[in-house]
Amino acid sequence: MGSVVVDAAEMVEFARRYDPQPIHVDAAAAMAGPFGGLIASGWLTAALFMRLFVDRVLNRSHALVSPGVEELRWLRPVRAGDVLSGRYHVLEVLESERDPARGTVRARAELLNGGGEVVMSLVARNMFRRRSASSPPPSS
Amino acid sequence: MGSVVVDAAEMVEFARRYDPQPIHVDAAAAMAGPFGGLIASGWLTAALFMRLFVDRVLNRSHALVSPGVEELRWLRPVRAGDVLSGRYHVLEVLESERDPARGTVRARAELLNGGGEVVMSLVARNMFRRRSASSPPPSS
Repeated sequence: MGSVVVDAAEMVEFARRYDPQPIHVDAAAAMAGPFGGLIASGWLTAALFMRLFVDRVLNRSHALVSPGVEELRWLRPVRAGDVLSGRYHVLEVLESERDPARGTVRARAELLNGGGEVVMSLVARNMFRRRSASSPPPSS
Repeated sequence: MGSVVVDAAEMVEFARRYDPQPIHVDAAAAMAGPFGGLIASGWLTAALFMRLFVDRVLNRSHALVSPGVEELRWLRPVRAGDVLSGRYHVLEVLESERDPARGTVRARAELLNGGGEVVMSLVARNMFRRRSASSPPPSS
């Protein structure tokens, strides 16, 4: 799924706008805190994952809307300079009962840092238009 | 929890960087799509919720990290100009077993649009430092 480098300026800019907690925006406070420095907002980490997912999966298929995600977990701190790479593991594919031209993919996605540690995981649901609508099953 | 107006320029700028699907960044394609126009990335909606939550709750308490969220649901489209307001309903408060000075709040949060429709809901877990650490229970 490709990778992305966490940019120091973007990390603070994002947090100033959306998540202005000291641990994300106040270098001195963060230095004295549990992580010894600034860490990324979990929502920036999620947004960076989304960009990888859009570039590598959604914009290469006929993606429809997503109803949401389950089990979004922030497992380890993310810092400026971290190289995050994505992993996407399909759990199940569900054909729509209402529209056979659509299906839902349920998948576990993970972001790993350069040390191979999982920093974020989530279970995503995404609806897609199928490549070719299956014919209805023969009425036997 | 206060409210926020979805800004048209910010909506597209956020999506160009983090969620460049046609429905979020391409006005013509979006016009022809299922919502008849551009809609916000669900991750922007989540980030706007976070800002309300930080201003009204987290930065007014001694918030610690969040391990994640459950059941993040995007229920209705969000458009530029929408006025989103937040609702936060505590489901349970759990004292830490390892550190009585900490606790976890599990809560259902919702964002509503001006018509009172819930556009996003999630179940959040947030760890807090307690106002005063409880003494250990008397050894009887």
